[in-house]
Amino acid sequence: MSGFFSKKYDGLAPYSAGEQPQDKKYIKLNTNESPFPPSPFATRLARESAGDMFLYPDPEYATLVKIASQKLGVNSSEILFTNGSDEALDFAFIAYCDERTPAVFPDITYGFYPVFAKINRVPFREIPLKDDYTIDVKDYFNAGGTVFIANPNAPTGIALKRSEIEEIIAKNPKNIVVIDEAYVDFGGESAVGLIKKYKNLIVTQTFSKSRSLAGARLGMAFACKEIINDLKTVKFSKNPYNVSRMTAAAGIGALLDEEYFKDNCKKIAQTRENFTAELVELGFSVLPSKANFVFAKCPKLSGETVYSELKNRGVLVRYFDKPRLKEFVRITIGSDEQMEKTLEVISEILKEKK
Amino acid sequence: MSGFFSKKYDGLAPYSAGEQPQDKKYIKLNTNESPFPPSPFATRLARESAGDMFLYPDPEYATLVKIASQKLGVNSSEILFTNGSDEALDFAFIAYCDERTPAVFPDITYGFYPVFAKINRVPFREIPLKDDYTIDVKDYFNAGGTVFIANPNAPTGIALKRSEIEEIIAKNPKNIVVIDEAYVDFGGESAVGLIKKYKNLIVTQTFSKSRSLAGARLGMAFACKEIINDLKTVKFSKNPYNVSRMTAAAGIGALLDEEYFKDNCKKIAQTRENFTAELVELGFSVLPSKANFVFAKCPKLSGETVYSELKNRGVLVRYFDKPRLKEFVRITIGSDEQMEKTLEVISEILKEKK
Repeated sequence: MSGFFSKKYDGLAPYSAGEQPQDKKYIKLNTNESPFPPSPFATRLARESAGDMFLYPDPEYATLVKIASQKLGVNSSEILFTNGSDEALDFAFIAYCDERTPAVFPDITYGFYPVFAKINRVPFREIPLKDDYTIDVKDYFNAGGTVFIANPNAPTGIALKRSEIEEIIAKNPKNIVVIDEAYVDFGGESAVGLIKKYKNLIVTQTFSKSRSLAGARLGMAFACKEIINDLKTVKFSKNPYNVSRMTAAAGIGALLDEEYFKDNCKKIAQTRENFTAELVELGFSVLPSKANFVFAKCPKLSGETVYSELKNRGVLVRYFDKPRLKEFVRITIGSDEQMEKTLEVISEILKEKK
Repeated sequence: MSGFFSKKYDGLAPYSAGEQPQDKKYIKLNTNESPFPPSPFATRLARESAGDMFLYPDPEYATLVKIASQKLGVNSSEILFTNGSDEALDFAFIAYCDERTPAVFPDITYGFYPVFAKINRVPFREIPLKDDYTIDVKDYFNAGGTVFIANPNAPTGIALKRSEIEEIIAKNPKNIVVIDEAYVDFGGESAVGLIKKYKNLIVTQTFSKSRSLAGARLGMAFACKEIINDLKTVKFSKNPYNVSRMTAAAGIGALLDEEYFKDNCKKIAQTRENFTAELVELGFSVLPSKANFVFAKCPKLSGETVYSELKNRGVLVRYFDKPRLKEFVRITIGSDEQMEKTLEVISEILKEKK
């Protein structure tokens, strides 16, 4: 950092996203993207809107909001669109955390939460997962701060039931509870419906995974009208036109092409189950995932070895050099072909290393 | 705001962008967009990239950075792309302002600066423009904080010379100086070249005005490598994939189609001169603008009256209800046809109100 950088950021280390190597073609299973291209309708609408790029977007994104409202069963006043769901999470840290209101989240979860806390200079408290990598919901009752729960959790893939999520929300009447549902569409139970009942709930979702739009940068926040208005106050104090015209158009297409979306989610869930069974067959331990990735531990090799041996052979997965995580690798669920190839490569590695 | 919203934001009122009414078709001269569509090459590249939206963008945007480097004569390490230049400005407030380092800017300038200060909870000091609406560069020597200067300034359109900008930079060796060049391409002198000489300089530019990409959301920051690395630290702690794939592709097209860009800037500058002469003919006072808008005062009617009479007749301009500004309207320079029509309407209003 330069000598000018403000000294107020204590121990700030940016989030490290999965690598995007340009050296060769990999089977890329490291950033939880969809293996399926965007809905053709999404692509078409995005292309059609390109000629209008000389005009600012509607900063309320009224058409996109209206269609989301119709398709997802919430009111227009209960939705905010953001530049990826990371932006929605950042807005929640900005609006609802401060010296007296720490962020509270599991010690093993989306690695961006502590970074958001640090860049926004708010305290945070990490609650350890249980030995089996699950969340004990009772740990979050009267949390004394703003709760962030990824459901399903990352990088474990383990999901809480909607009734468990509801317990956390109900037991925090004085705190905001943010449920980060980036991976919910692959088998989890969404809490979006609960925004009608609880005034302290924010649910975030993304178009990056289940809707094949990681490159478009589109996320959503759902909450009661008052909370959405708070988040809009932040948005209009940061970046009023936070979503591009083409991305908004792609979002409309993706929402309207429900069948494509549902089919892809079903395929991923099925491929995940098959892949998991095969990994178990090969001796791996695999946490029970409801996401588009699995978190898997090889009986004989460290996570780092599995990661680097796979990378050498052209398969990119994610490895976290942290206690309780470093025995594992996180493998995104791609197409059936990609996963079969990955299994072959894993078998090869296991044979060689025997 | 809900009862949950953090109390730490003192007097936060979001930025109010120009209205985007949907009730009828206006001649829209209120948000400084380009009247010209994006470069056909930009549109083509954006469309071609739409099919890749299922993959995250390269968070370093290496191709875009390389082309900008070649076209704009700076090193790749001296450029950062952002989600509009507002995001670059926000990053500068985040990295370089704190309790001991207030933001320092003119009292009349881009209205977002005080909002950025408030949402980032940093103090700011406003320095009055001179009676003729110009900046006295001496007011900014040893400013004791991070200086933000829009050049040309908004909403006045008045530009400082590059030598004057350099004086401010040279006289602030202990402070960062941010030169916001959103409007520089219409006749101002850019300070980008000065990043080679000064380690305390950031120059921001946008694709929203001169490059006809307001709807794509693309901005740039230029600075020495150390400063760009600071800004990257912020970006990777906020939103690593801040620019969509299609927007990055559009940016490449816009940079490569230099002729289209230069032609459009020249046309706007010429139209501005013609329009200004006609307004003066009608009795208006017009500040000397180097931007794609003029700030003009009617001898007989208040800014609000001119604004609302124009709006009633289908021409949308911007009016600021603030001391020293409320006698004026800010009129974006559109196409020759749009400006001729606007002049006709203004003549009508003047006749009626005589």
